[in-house]
Amino acid sequence: MFATRKIFLALVGVLIADSALSRPLTAEQKLALSFVLPLKAPQPKDNISNTHKIELGKQLFFDPRISKDGTVSCNSCHNVMSSGTDNRAVSAGVGGQLGGRSSPTVFNAAFLSALMWDGRKTTLEDQATGPLTNPVEMAMESNDAVVARLKQIDGYQELFTKAFGSRDALNINNVAKAIAAYERTLITPNSPFDRWAKGDDHAISASAKRGFTAMNELGCTSCHSGPAFSGPKLPVGTAFFQRFPTFTDNDYVKKYDLMADEGRKTVTKDIADAHMFRVPTLRNVATTAPYFHNGKVLTLQEAIRVMAKTQLNKNLSANEVDDIYNFLVSLTGTVPEQTMPRLSKTMGTSVTPQ
Amino acid sequence: MFATRKIFLALVGVLIADSALSRPLTAEQKLALSFVLPLKAPQPKDNISNTHKIELGKQLFFDPRISKDGTVSCNSCHNVMSSGTDNRAVSAGVGGQLGGRSSPTVFNAAFLSALMWDGRKTTLEDQATGPLTNPVEMAMESNDAVVARLKQIDGYQELFTKAFGSRDALNINNVAKAIAAYERTLITPNSPFDRWAKGDDHAISASAKRGFTAMNELGCTSCHSGPAFSGPKLPVGTAFFQRFPTFTDNDYVKKYDLMADEGRKTVTKDIADAHMFRVPTLRNVATTAPYFHNGKVLTLQEAIRVMAKTQLNKNLSANEVDDIYNFLVSLTGTVPEQTMPRLSKTMGTSVTPQ
Repeated sequence: MFATRKIFLALVGVLIADSALSRPLTAEQKLALSFVLPLKAPQPKDNISNTHKIELGKQLFFDPRISKDGTVSCNSCHNVMSSGTDNRAVSAGVGGQLGGRSSPTVFNAAFLSALMWDGRKTTLEDQATGPLTNPVEMAMESNDAVVARLKQIDGYQELFTKAFGSRDALNINNVAKAIAAYERTLITPNSPFDRWAKGDDHAISASAKRGFTAMNELGCTSCHSGPAFSGPKLPVGTAFFQRFPTFTDNDYVKKYDLMADEGRKTVTKDIADAHMFRVPTLRNVATTAPYFHNGKVLTLQEAIRVMAKTQLNKNLSANEVDDIYNFLVSLTGTVPEQTMPRLSKTMGTSVTPQ
Repeated sequence: MFATRKIFLALVGVLIADSALSRPLTAEQKLALSFVLPLKAPQPKDNISNTHKIELGKQLFFDPRISKDGTVSCNSCHNVMSSGTDNRAVSAGVGGQLGGRSSPTVFNAAFLSALMWDGRKTTLEDQATGPLTNPVEMAMESNDAVVARLKQIDGYQELFTKAFGSRDALNINNVAKAIAAYERTLITPNSPFDRWAKGDDHAISASAKRGFTAMNELGCTSCHSGPAFSGPKLPVGTAFFQRFPTFTDNDYVKKYDLMADEGRKTVTKDIADAHMFRVPTLRNVATTAPYFHNGKVLTLQEAIRVMAKTQLNKNLSANEVDDIYNFLVSLTGTVPEQTMPRLSKTMGTSVTPQ
């Protein structure tokens, strides 16, 4: 009897859900469909994932022993138990040294065509090893020093062999590949926005829906397009940059020191690249305060006002800000459920210099 | 056919295992039984664990937002993905500040009757909040500041209510209780030594068995007794201290600067407590290099030699050191399998001061 009732209720549930989903999509939902995040991240042909590679990448991501003094791991600044960032203006590396720009979230980085604020890295593999030898981040002397240290840790050799199918697989390229493979699992599909776009009318509020419409009408989505709201899909290696700030004649520029960092020009030395930045993802943006490359804007509401003024020369009403805020909150996905890595150990000795 | 063969092999396996376990224990195994780690940690009557409390404690343990600048969590120095320590001589707190003594492992701390090298804390609850306001560790201004910050984080209020069954449960005592409840899950029973003690003759090597005998015959286990090899079971609040070094007329004392730290005297100001330290656990000691309160001894082999000389005035042979080393390695348990916590988030803002 009880079982029959359960089946009946389950059927009713399916019918309700089905009728909701089979209702024609609204014009906004049809538009929203182009922003839906895929359930799987794309992977390059030369780094196809496997479970061993992902598990190895997770260990490396959490292992502070590949920083100079054993205190900083990738997860220190890209906390995957939280927002994929450290929620600081700029990050702290070994010895408490501060970086120059705010750490972006690692979540959904797998969908981006440009990494780093100045777009100087284009693939997860390229990016993964940068912080290891950055003197204010993990501060290892060289990639060789990273590999040498990993070779001292019982268990890593075996993990690399399992992940890459060859005996002599512990090298810096495979460190990068393993970390990248792990990062491709750090995605947050099925946010309320995605569920709404696919037909669940009640997944987001009326205010959030108005916010999405406003984002399109104001012009925000001209740049913040695509599944990660980070620009159009471009060939690998082609980054999507915009000038920030575009409109400089406003109080925000001075208040938040927005002209200090020349962005992509610091890499290319080309004057045409001055203040060009890659378009960052808006996915989970409500969880990644403080905002912008310098982390000087403390709240998302203020970040919305700043963007409207500096990029579109528009002053938003309080209601518009609220609606866009609610829309952006609806882009908050669920942090992936994960087991903790169990780091390979060394017996009777520490690889961290004392 | 294949299934039958599998069942047959399984039965053979059971018979072999059973015959091994039903063989009478050797004299050494009988002695070893008094050192076996229980499968569950004891818990105080006023902090009975529940799953919500443990989950909350895990979130708090991993949450860097309860440090001054949002960079240090309990796990920073007591890494439960690894050895329960940071494998550094002394730990680094906010801004890279260094502590004065080496972080002990959190694993099996639930079995200890004295916490901290000088035994100034006697329960996990007492200890849990100390680092939060220590200026060179997490550096929060006060316990009130910790609570105030937690109250800003959406979700914590609800977690505290679930864990403690009352509405107004977010206070510093419950922060301590939740962290302690989580720490009581961080135990490593069933090490090779424990399996050997319970009758599995092949769980440890002949050298490790000789090492255990040597530990007893030399006198090491006079102090390193009980399931955590940290001293006898004493009433709650009664710590087991020993003078270290006891014999000071040897090269090690100067080489490793063993007279600089006066141990318990720094707390009690009583001259009788000079150089008295709690007896640390030997469980997982092979994974927690470098060694001693000041972390100045880099390898376990050297730590064995130092202890024999400074505490028992004995010079060990290379074979004795090897045997004791192998015995100590056999005390390495398995790091508990855990899911990652998913930290409660704040929307549109960061609680970390910028």
